Amino acid sequence: MIGRLNHIAIAVPDLDAASAQYRDMLGADVGAPQDEPDHGVRVVFVTLPNTKVELLHPLGDASPIAGFLQKNPAGGIHHICYEVDDIRDARDRLLDKGARVLGDGEPKIGAHGKPVLFVHPKDFNGCLVELEQV
Amino acid sequence: MIGRLNHIAIAVPDLDAASAQYRDMLGADVGAPQDEPDHGVRVVFVTLPNTKVELLHPLGDASPIAGFLQKNPAGGIHHICYEVDDIRDARDRLLDKGARVLGDGEPKIGAHGKPVLFVHPKDFNGCLVELEQV
Repeated sequence: MIGRLNHIAIAVPDLDAASAQYRDMLGADVGAPQDEPDHGVRVVFVTLPNTKVELLHPLGDASPIAGFLQKNPAGGIHHICYEVDDIRDARDRLLDKGARVLGDGEPKIGAHGKPVLFVHPKDFNGCLVELEQV
Repeated sequence: MIGRLNHIAIAVPDLDAASAQYRDMLGADVGAPQDEPDHGVRVVFVTLPNTKVELLHPLGDASPIAGFLQKNPAGGIHHICYEVDDIRDARDRLLDKGARVLGDGEPKIGAHGKPVLFVHPKDFNGCLVELEQV
């Protein structure tokens, strides 16, 4: 069912410093910061040959990243995202096998403009898993 | 400098359960467990089209994963691994730019039989980064 790893999302306390690390220490292809007000994040994309890293920083008062950074002030991996062909088929398979999906179970439009859902991390080895329909 | 994302390593409290989740809930290509006594882990490889997920469980008394699972009983992402062409060049660049590498600074032979080193997570957004020479 799942296809490619679409991205790893890392919440960072200082977006400029994290961008500089990836650019200067790791020599990676680092983009410019982009505000995504609908999703409460400011994001920098790090393009690797086979996938992406997204450096996330809170934007606005209701950012989903703010609480994570309060608990993890140094930052940390916030979620990983796997691609699926059909988000509703994926959801039904997860629910059928006993997993829980966050929210009301309906896919939402994610930060890339595509339908996404999140699987409950307690059911998945403490790891927040996003599925994105591509 | 860094190339592909080689793998994401997820520490899991129950390797059979995690394997079944990835196989049955996510429909992924999940291998058989492999013991790596030299590295203190039992590992299951999940092969995605563009990278790998490694599900790690402690093996033996001195496993580097045991402490992580004590702090994170549900499991969690333990590290991410980026490929580099030359591990010593990579180390020198990191040190020159002010990062810290774990241990004595000399690359070790990692679980895939290739030279690796780890960057201090406090310098990298709370995220343990492995570099592997490929």
